[in-house]
Amino acid sequence: MSITGQQLEDIRQARATTTATLRPTVPALEEVLYEPIPLLDHGFIRVIDYMGDDNAVVQAARVSYGRGTKKVSEDRGLIMYLMRHWHTTPFEMAEIKFHVKLPIFVARQWIRHRTASVNEYSARYSILDKEFYLPAPEQLAAQSSANRQGRGDVLEGEEAQRVLDLLRGDAERTYADYAWMLNEGTDEQAADPDRSGLARELARMNLTLNTYTQWYWKTNLHNLMHFLRLRADPHAQYEIRVYAEKMLDIMKRWVPITTEAFIEHRMESASLSRTALAAVKRMIAGEQVTAATSGLSAREWRELAATLGLPEA
Amino acid sequence: MSITGQQLEDIRQARATTTATLRPTVPALEEVLYEPIPLLDHGFIRVIDYMGDDNAVVQAARVSYGRGTKKVSEDRGLIMYLMRHWHTTPFEMAEIKFHVKLPIFVARQWIRHRTASVNEYSARYSILDKEFYLPAPEQLAAQSSANRQGRGDVLEGEEAQRVLDLLRGDAERTYADYAWMLNEGTDEQAADPDRSGLARELARMNLTLNTYTQWYWKTNLHNLMHFLRLRADPHAQYEIRVYAEKMLDIMKRWVPITTEAFIEHRMESASLSRTALAAVKRMIAGEQVTAATSGLSAREWRELAATLGLPEA
Amino acid sequence: MSITGQQLEDIRQARATTTATLRPTVPALEEVLYEPIPLLDHGFIRVIDYMGDDNAVVQAARVSYGRGTKKVSEDRGLIMYLMRHWHTTPFEMAEIKFHVKLPIFVARQWIRHRTASVNEYSARYSILDKEFYLPAPEQLAAQSSANRQGRGDVLEGEEAQRVLDLLRGDAERTYADYAWMLNEGTDEQAADPDRSGLARELARMNLTLNTYTQWYWKTNLHNLMHFLRLRADPHAQYEIRVYAEKMLDIMKRWVPITTEAFIEHRMESASLSRTALAAVKRMIAGEQVTAATSGLSAREWRELAATLGLPEA
Amino acid sequence: MSITGQQLEDIRQARATTTATLRPTVPALEEVLYEPIPLLDHGFIRVIDYMGDDNAVVQAARVSYGRGTKKVSEDRGLIMYLMRHWHTTPFEMAEIKFHVKLPIFVARQWIRHRTASVNEYSARYSILDKEFYLPAPEQLAAQSSANRQGRGDVLEGEEAQRVLDLLRGDAERTYADYAWMLNEGTDEQAADPDRSGLARELARMNLTLNTYTQWYWKTNLHNLMHFLRLRADPHAQYEIRVYAEKMLDIMKRWVPITTEAFIEHRMESASLSRTALAAVKRMIAGEQVTAATSGLSAREWRELAATLGLPEA
Repeated sequence: MSITGQQLEDIRQARATTTATLRPTVPALEEVLYEPIPLLDHGFIRVIDYMGDDNAVVQAARVSYGRGTKKVSEDRGLIMYLMRHWHTTPFEMAEIKFHVKLPIFVARQWIRHRTASVNEYSARYSILDKEFYLPAPEQLAAQSSANRQGRGDVLEGEEAQRVLDLLRGDAERTYADYAWMLNEGTDEQAADPDRSGLARELARMNLTLNTYTQWYWKTNLHNLMHFLRLRADPHAQYEIRVYAEKMLDIMKRWVPITTEAFIEHRMESASLSRTALAAVKRMIAGEQVTAATSGLSAREWRELAATLGLPEA
Repeated sequence: MSITGQQLEDIRQARATTTATLRPTVPALEEVLYEPIPLLDHGFIRVIDYMGDDNAVVQAARVSYGRGTKKVSEDRGLIMYLMRHWHTTPFEMAEIKFHVKLPIFVARQWIRHRTASVNEYSARYSILDKEFYLPAPEQLAAQSSANRQGRGDVLEGEEAQRVLDLLRGDAERTYADYAWMLNEGTDEQAADPDRSGLARELARMNLTLNTYTQWYWKTNLHNLMHFLRLRADPHAQYEIRVYAEKMLDIMKRWVPITTEAFIEHRMESASLSRTALAAVKRMIAGEQVTAATSGLSAREWRELAATLGLPEA
Repeated sequence: MSITGQQLEDIRQARATTTATLRPTVPALEEVLYEPIPLLDHGFIRVIDYMGDDNAVVQAARVSYGRGTKKVSEDRGLIMYLMRHWHTTPFEMAEIKFHVKLPIFVARQWIRHRTASVNEYSARYSILDKEFYLPAPEQLAAQSSANRQGRGDVLEGEEAQRVLDLLRGDAERTYADYAWMLNEGTDEQAADPDRSGLARELARMNLTLNTYTQWYWKTNLHNLMHFLRLRADPHAQYEIRVYAEKMLDIMKRWVPITTEAFIEHRMESASLSRTALAAVKRMIAGEQVTAATSGLSAREWRELAATLGLPEA
Repeated sequence: MSITGQQLEDIRQARATTTATLRPTVPALEEVLYEPIPLLDHGFIRVIDYMGDDNAVVQAARVSYGRGTKKVSEDRGLIMYLMRHWHTTPFEMAEIKFHVKLPIFVARQWIRHRTASVNEYSARYSILDKEFYLPAPEQLAAQSSANRQGRGDVLEGEEAQRVLDLLRGDAERTYADYAWMLNEGTDEQAADPDRSGLARELARMNLTLNTYTQWYWKTNLHNLMHFLRLRADPHAQYEIRVYAEKMLDIMKRWVPITTEAFIEHRMESASLSRTALAAVKRMIAGEQVTAATSGLSAREWRELAATLGLPEA
């Protein structure tokens, strides 16, 4: 994480200014407000603002006049019920805004979630910093042979070293050429007065996809959960999953009851297809169901066995 | 506006609880937070929560680390620039939530704005109050002869009285029959133990479209402005326009600079078609342009003349 | 279903005009194109247009150059895989457009699905027909005692008759008063030249919520399935469910493989919460799990027992 | 444009298969269906499918039963009216789907338009081709001094040559290293059996932002126009503008009347702020308005002068 002294000072000042509000506040989330939480080698995530809390969900579901007036146990039961029965609109009533620094190839996955508001640092308008992502050695994995879009074993020895050298060398060279083409001067080298310098909107095309960018990203609690269900999942690429996992921690500070319901009914729930459900019923009735008699494809059977913790998995 | 004692007490309590926050707050908006602002005969609008302020727009546009650090005049200039050049995403970074009580036929127009979150009071689940909208006499207008979807002169005399009597009589009768079909008992009459009572989800179909409903409605500043541009416009139906106008007042408390930019560049701006622009250029050059020589249709010419305040209008 | 002779003639003409296209076509869907399929007492649903087929899903998932070139069995396997693993974007690549006639209270539920395009018949601009929904006797149900938003037993005898009389009587009276207020003349009665007539945008508020409206409704296959999952479900209100069920039939004509996958992995699948999954694993291992030892609430246990077809349900 | 023989064969076959449909067809658009239209050095755009035509707009606005039955002049007038008065929903009733090949930095701008469906070629799953964008010499522009996010004069001589050499050299080197890290073998070099090869989802991060990607992109006519208004505008970056301009040509084939209305009321229209409108009124009245007396900022005045073709511009 590379934050300049001026940026740290801006953050310190933001954390120094307390005001009084009639709105609901969440002390556990205020504790980390504005603070950059480091991720990967240069990334971070910061909570910039939020609106609402667990109670906002309850209040909207009841279209109530006050701030949610029933007993805590009833509120919790209502949130569990809403989650279980996919009554999703009350969860749209709470909102959160992040400032995220992330590699461009991660940003490209992230942006596919369309139901959010985004303002990205513009490389048409400004110059990107010299920061690029290099995987930690334990993340340098071979292509998975089982999964066309997954990772297999960790690379080792000479090949691993060579890969890291290439990634670093190429990122450094392309960045240096980017800076040369811009000809706007750096700490190390003044601009050449005899050259015009290439337009920023063109020069940026020379950067590699592991270059860091940053953005403001704002979404509601419902869409946040949709994002987390897909991106905090073990099938998600590691580099986006680390962001999602930190966001899940933040969500727990913000809306602890909704987070509990989310883990119970989404993150750690299982979906059984019609055929899988029929097989499970037979298993419960004591029948010995096999891949062959289950009616499932080989791959579906493996997935079901893994879900149920069957020895066949 | 009909709010029960318990509801007023809930609101009073919500306004009594101040907490400290590191988030930006807007004192002028806090002044009216939770307070019902009356509208039409039984409607209201209340601000329930908000996130961000004018500064949030600036901060997102700059993807900055602090709370917006430049001079006020620069921030104002940036907001004006963003509005003028349709850089809309920074305005998505502020959010507001309302509680609204409104006639069903107004709710049907309002809901067509899809980019908002809504939780409506459920008449499948609960019983609607006996409240329906009756236009004030000065709003009881005849069909416009010029505009297929507008109002003309105010109705007067016997016809006006008869219309009001019919609206009131029909709403009262259909509500009474709704209550009878439900058979859940009212203050005036106990439930009949020998009857089952019709399901709420069915009985509601007997109500007229001027019955009041209520909802929580949450949207971001960009989509709020889109709503206001269409619904605070003189062509909008009066009954939704009064809500939009109050929301514009609220917006001014919340984000005064953005509101100024919005009025300058949207609400009171004019759009000239290619042909209208060509006509305006000729007028400025001193030429006497007429409907016939303008290249516009008769209707377009009238609209342009009205925009420019020409005598032909 | 009330369609005039002119409208039937318009439909007949639309079905008489065949043209050649290079686009994919679906003969089974063309068979019913434009034809009104009757629903409830006066409603209908018509397919107006469509784009894509099962193959469009495959083609987009592969970003392929041709029209999907692999074997049918591979295409089917891919669609099953996409559905099972919630790869939803390829299903957005097919689109369908309906013309629907439906009671206003059903339209109010339906419109909550925001991810569709809608053009509704405007009662600001035009006059609504005298058509309103009256439930068939077997649909006239009492409020459910178990479910706050459901139906219980069918009403019978005098109460049922009285309910139907009230619904019919109120709808007829409010419509007659609507027509009187408009004063635009009907087949039965000429307009009164001495009256101005109330503006259409106001008069409509006197109609009851069972009045029929109509709209064009267009959505993509992904969002259609989301709609059907919620509205073709037994918990949906009967009056919207009948529309969803017809749309599911239409979907089967249009995209038979996707429909098969949708039924297998969505409509007839089951979701097990973390706690329910743990209970199921113990059952499969031969343990006798009860409500008390399951860790589930009483209500969750009933739902699980029903899903698994346990005797306790 | 680099399309393989197999891909051309797929396209040829798709164009060879005509079927009969009851749906509206647009012969002028069928002429170019599936055909790749070349763009930049390796890009293309292809129309893959479409739904509806100018008539679909009219039909939805009228919620009509047939295929649009009035005279052509009335249909045209209605489309002009809808466009002029921002009645946008009928334009959502037509849909179009493209297959686009484009540099990644262009894809990053394009994807910010959220109201579309997208399936992108996956570099987690597959290997990207060795194709990258190099600007034509006349597009190699210096940074604009007037506009922080624009281009100025064309680079010339040695500097231009050096920029092109760097862009080409860096793209070739990073691609070669990408291929080496993958170790999956190429036409030129077999995979090294002693190396594992880096996972595709990691190796891709070494590519530069001018590498070509491709996607299926589907949107409705309303959202297409929104995209074109921003991206076919002279302020848009050249590399995305060339795509938008081809799409505008395609739109003209598809919906000629809507395109005419779009150009008249959007592309070549002018928006005057409240203050600018007041200045224009004074000009028409014969007053000599200057920057100083206009009430506009220096920048706004320049923009207004350019719009009106005033000598001060």
